[in-house]
Amino acid sequence: MIELKKNTAAPEFFFGTQVRKSPYFDATIRWGAKGFSVYNHMYIPRDFGDAEQNFWNMVNGATLSDVAVERQVEITGPDAAVFTQLLTPRNLSECAVGQCKYVLLTNDSGGILNDPVLLRLAENHFWLSLADSDILLWARGVAINAGLDVTICEPDVSPLQLQGPQSGHIMRRLFGERIDTLRYYWLEEFELEGISLIVSRTGWSSELGYELYLRDGSRGDDLWELIMAAGQEFGLKPGHTSSIRRIEAGMLSYHADMDANTNPYELGLGRLVDLDMDAEFIGKAALKKIYQQGVSRKQVGLRIDGDPLTGPNNEFWPIMVAGQQVGKVTSAIYSSRLKANIALAMVAVEHTEIGTELEVITQMETRSSTVVEKPFYDPKKKLVSG
Amino acid sequence: MIELKKNTAAPEFFFGTQVRKSPYFDATIRWGAKGFSVYNHMYIPRDFGDAEQNFWNMVNGATLSDVAVERQVEITGPDAAVFTQLLTPRNLSECAVGQCKYVLLTNDSGGILNDPVLLRLAENHFWLSLADSDILLWARGVAINAGLDVTICEPDVSPLQLQGPQSGHIMRRLFGERIDTLRYYWLEEFELEGISLIVSRTGWSSELGYELYLRDGSRGDDLWELIMAAGQEFGLKPGHTSSIRRIEAGMLSYHADMDANTNPYELGLGRLVDLDMDAEFIGKAALKKIYQQGVSRKQVGLRIDGDPLTGPNNEFWPIMVAGQQVGKVTSAIYSSRLKANIALAMVAVEHTEIGTELEVITQMETRSSTVVEKPFYDPKKKLVSG
Repeated sequence: MIELKKNTAAPEFFFGTQVRKSPYFDATIRWGAKGFSVYNHMYIPRDFGDAEQNFWNMVNGATLSDVAVERQVEITGPDAAVFTQLLTPRNLSECAVGQCKYVLLTNDSGGILNDPVLLRLAENHFWLSLADSDILLWARGVAINAGLDVTICEPDVSPLQLQGPQSGHIMRRLFGERIDTLRYYWLEEFELEGISLIVSRTGWSSELGYELYLRDGSRGDDLWELIMAAGQEFGLKPGHTSSIRRIEAGMLSYHADMDANTNPYELGLGRLVDLDMDAEFIGKAALKKIYQQGVSRKQVGLRIDGDPLTGPNNEFWPIMVAGQQVGKVTSAIYSSRLKANIALAMVAVEHTEIGTELEVITQMETRSSTVVEKPFYDPKKKLVSG
Repeated sequence: MIELKKNTAAPEFFFGTQVRKSPYFDATIRWGAKGFSVYNHMYIPRDFGDAEQNFWNMVNGATLSDVAVERQVEITGPDAAVFTQLLTPRNLSECAVGQCKYVLLTNDSGGILNDPVLLRLAENHFWLSLADSDILLWARGVAINAGLDVTICEPDVSPLQLQGPQSGHIMRRLFGERIDTLRYYWLEEFELEGISLIVSRTGWSSELGYELYLRDGSRGDDLWELIMAAGQEFGLKPGHTSSIRRIEAGMLSYHADMDANTNPYELGLGRLVDLDMDAEFIGKAALKKIYQQGVSRKQVGLRIDGDPLTGPNNEFWPIMVAGQQVGKVTSAIYSSRLKANIALAMVAVEHTEIGTELEVITQMETRSSTVVEKPFYDPKKKLVSG
């Protein structure tokens, strides 16, 4: 993480211009960002002082987070719909204009290259709102010899996430009643003091939430301040995406919980693969074979025993049964709401039944753990696997 | 930058497993790494306490740097040579087995996607040793419909850079006299205590230097310690790539000095483009057009007046003439050897003549500057543009 030096707001220790700043960079520094990570070649604030406080701010009120690192790949042109379908095993034939879909992008081996939110802005106008990999290069590479008439670029678009139970009130204050009709995983165009936006009811928290896609980077500071001002009376806090909340929800982080060597079935995401559709997509033959053969490992939820973990795992922790490695913990964290260490893990199928006991080797020690249901927390059912 | 918290060697503040660690990570922490950046989804040490000391260590003795972030794209298969040529405008027909070439990879608009060192390990076995972008995705995307029989992957290969005038002595201590015959930009296979390596005479410093490509990540710690031990009597220091040295040499940093909107001619790198070869490559038609029309901007070296810069520019500084922006500073730093602030800049062609005076707007103030020759420092000629 990039930490700000004490007693200085000047980020003079940053390394040149090789990593980009977000249009909200200055605003996040002003509002207390203390540390950054790098994602899609851009700084992302990941520390406002206390990760647990950030979690409670989000689940009890609302947080505003700079997620400009979710770079957009824009696909337009007469063949945009055909080309976009080529990139994902999810059947897009039912995806209406104005709708969003969580999709996996797969390579010709069926491995996952990214898990963006797809936004359909018009019949032949798509955005892929990316996790951390250069899908712009992938898509343009695929297009080279695809024989399809498409234009693929990274537009000047930088999202913010407003997440938490109070986010609806804040959005109403900003945009009026029109926001009430925006449904889950749909998008609409809005304008705020001359700032052109796309707004979607999406996020990375499983809380009520919105993403606001700024379409003019020069207005980042204005947009941030407008939202913070509107949110003041609703307790809005500046924040960052919460690892605690996303793991509670069983949501995935690219590179951590999956990579190009992971296929959708291993993640239990077969619903995002339509092998029966007529349309072609990259990885179809490979995924058909994997589906027929079955997978040898599967992602599970784990409850890890012992004292609260002091932070997220920063290595893939081996999972052992009778002295043999049978898998790895990919994301682990302590949830004080659930009073439990919760984790996502990739485990050999024969050890994935609910209730199975597995040994986890952290950097410090060996701990016992149990396979449990995901998500760990469901707002409707409250504690699921606490 | 990721800074280590004071008084703790435990990297507990890192964010999960979304960013990878290098096989040399633990070694660099042990040897004093104090801060990291992120490059190709992996941590890279960029701070051992004093950037200027690191520079002097490199130019007066030798430094060992973890550059495992230079991920390799491996291209093999019957059509590997044809496919690799497709990716770059540089004519590879003269590239012998065992040779390395600095190449640009271009997209169909002639924009630069990466500037790797290409290594030809066998007739149909290539590595692209990458700057910071996911060329694995680009290459596999291009291959989808290319109709060529190739296999493209990221092998378990992690380079170290040993750079500086003492590096030859250290390599001789490690590998014996055989190393003496390794020529500039050639490679050979070596083994060190059972560790399989490729060694090339390349680097990012313009000093005498070597890159050692570890082919088994589990041996990272062993390799690091073997080299440090052999280097002890030659004053070898652990270090990192030096922004000061690479800017002195006029060497480029991807995303900072060029990106997909920069073409080779703007960088004065026409020698890396062969428009006349029969072989096809991506971007040929676009680069032909750019070549015929000429470029509207060009990279220059700048000497910036005034006090020593306190660090690298962390924004693109506007360059002004008579109140109009005519370009931007892409990389700037103070060289205490040259006693000058030196910079790489992209400027409208009409303002690129040597001796032209240009205004630079740093974050703090306006400074005068002058267009000068690159490189700023040439070991043979000593001070060039000091």
